[in-house]
Amino acid sequence: MTLIDGKAISEQIKQEIAAEVAAIVAAGGKRPHLAAILVGHDGGSETYVANKVKACQVCGFTSTLIRYEADVTEEELLAGVRRLNDDADVDGFIVQLPLPRHISEQKVIETIDYRKDVDGFHPINVGRMVIGLPCYVSATPNGILELLKRYNIATSGKKCVVLGRSNIVGKPMATLMMQKACPGDATVTVCHSRSADLVGECRKADILIAAMGQPNFVKADMVKEGAVVIDVGTTRVPDASRKSGFKLTGDVLFDEVAPRCSFITPVPGGVGPMTIVSLMKNTLLAGKKAIYP
Amino acid sequence: MTLIDGKAISEQIKQEIAAEVAAIVAAGGKRPHLAAILVGHDGGSETYVANKVKACQVCGFTSTLIRYEADVTEEELLAGVRRLNDDADVDGFIVQLPLPRHISEQKVIETIDYRKDVDGFHPINVGRMVIGLPCYVSATPNGILELLKRYNIATSGKKCVVLGRSNIVGKPMATLMMQKACPGDATVTVCHSRSADLVGECRKADILIAAMGQPNFVKADMVKEGAVVIDVGTTRVPDASRKSGFKLTGDVLFDEVAPRCSFITPVPGGVGPMTIVSLMKNTLLAGKKAIYP
Repeated sequence: MTLIDGKAISEQIKQEIAAEVAAIVAAGGKRPHLAAILVGHDGGSETYVANKVKACQVCGFTSTLIRYEADVTEEELLAGVRRLNDDADVDGFIVQLPLPRHISEQKVIETIDYRKDVDGFHPINVGRMVIGLPCYVSATPNGILELLKRYNIATSGKKCVVLGRSNIVGKPMATLMMQKACPGDATVTVCHSRSADLVGECRKADILIAAMGQPNFVKADMVKEGAVVIDVGTTRVPDASRKSGFKLTGDVLFDEVAPRCSFITPVPGGVGPMTIVSLMKNTLLAGKKAIYP
Repeated sequence: MTLIDGKAISEQIKQEIAAEVAAIVAAGGKRPHLAAILVGHDGGSETYVANKVKACQVCGFTSTLIRYEADVTEEELLAGVRRLNDDADVDGFIVQLPLPRHISEQKVIETIDYRKDVDGFHPINVGRMVIGLPCYVSATPNGILELLKRYNIATSGKKCVVLGRSNIVGKPMATLMMQKACPGDATVTVCHSRSADLVGECRKADILIAAMGQPNFVKADMVKEGAVVIDVGTTRVPDASRKSGFKLTGDVLFDEVAPRCSFITPVPGGVGPMTIVSLMKNTLLAGKKAIYP
């Protein structure tokens, strides 16, 4: 069994990005600039955004953090989005989700200029991804593709089962795994809460990608001997023995499942760091105007 | 075994549309107007466009056919598209595919104003469909959903296998069948030319949707007893015994497969007429400005 070290790969990619940024700046080019909007003080969101800002520093990007209190009105937030759309120095930006319930996430996402939508959530980027056109691919699926690539994991013709059909992970992951590309060319099955034979599908998977957000959902008897298991889950499960008061828990019961796998990602240190590094890669593309002029 | 009569259903829907158009016009509203651009004189394309024009008449739509010779330049064609974008009387329009090789289909599709893109091929409509937002859903998958609905075929939790991963049928079909909706909520598997165990997957399908464009590809031993089989194939296979010189042939070896099915679509008279009627439904939506203001 090989443990897929997302942390190490992500550090390596950040160094690659930093080297490219140094070369761009040395040649008189513009330093890429990522802005992030954070609404409220949710613990998870605070951590994610802090990690993104830290990653920007490592990559040599300029970063800007814009905060709103949780009672910001939708109109104020949309005005903030429009300001970033119009700010020529900002190459790309994100609005950290989830947002307070009185704000429409979809409206916020659609207000972001798709040319700066480095999260890849805007319908134009989603559509272009599905069609196979250059675009900002959403961060988590792209990070998983990068892991498969760097570990030389064969995907062509394999049976890939994706657990979960979210817009952010499940659906784009399925699309990317079936595309004519490498990684890609897999036979892809998407299972979800309504699937009658979820366990049976999982047992046949050569590559199992768990993105349901249900801690320890995938047990050993759901995994074929020699399978590749990618765990996208990052639920904060209360744990009094820890200083933070919680334990970041994946969708896979790791200790039980790992011995059956050819490759497996841990939580934390697997997909999580790759998600942030994918955002960095999109920001570099935005800085270079590589996708949209 | 129940034969799914796409022809009868499509006639019925056209009557429903015609009644709604009559009511709109009686109330002083505008008659929906579909325009079609046809390049060259390909036999299949001529037939498709003629059928679309005919369907417009039945539905009470205004229709306009704009022809270009096969040697039209890309720039001339794009100028024609822009004229239709700007023509306030045209509610929606299509450019019949395929186009001659010297013209970029993707560029043409992206030049169409997404608010008039009743084929649903523009990245914005594709992205919105994937996310689950109101949009023009592409015609063939939408027609298949309509057949499933009108025949009360249960899809929730069922195993649905889609053969083919095209942008026009396979990918959107898979997305729609997995969405939280009715029809939908199926466990969806997409198989294609690279799939290692395509036959094995087909044999487990409760609903099999064949969209590979390979005549008679699906044999009886690939179909589970009691399965629902939807045949999207429409290949013109040479047949000297026919006046037309060809026989429209599906992806399913009908005579052999039909006895095993609970429901099956014939070719012709199954999915084909539903595709045209879906275009009519999108045109009605466009005329009413129901999706985009």
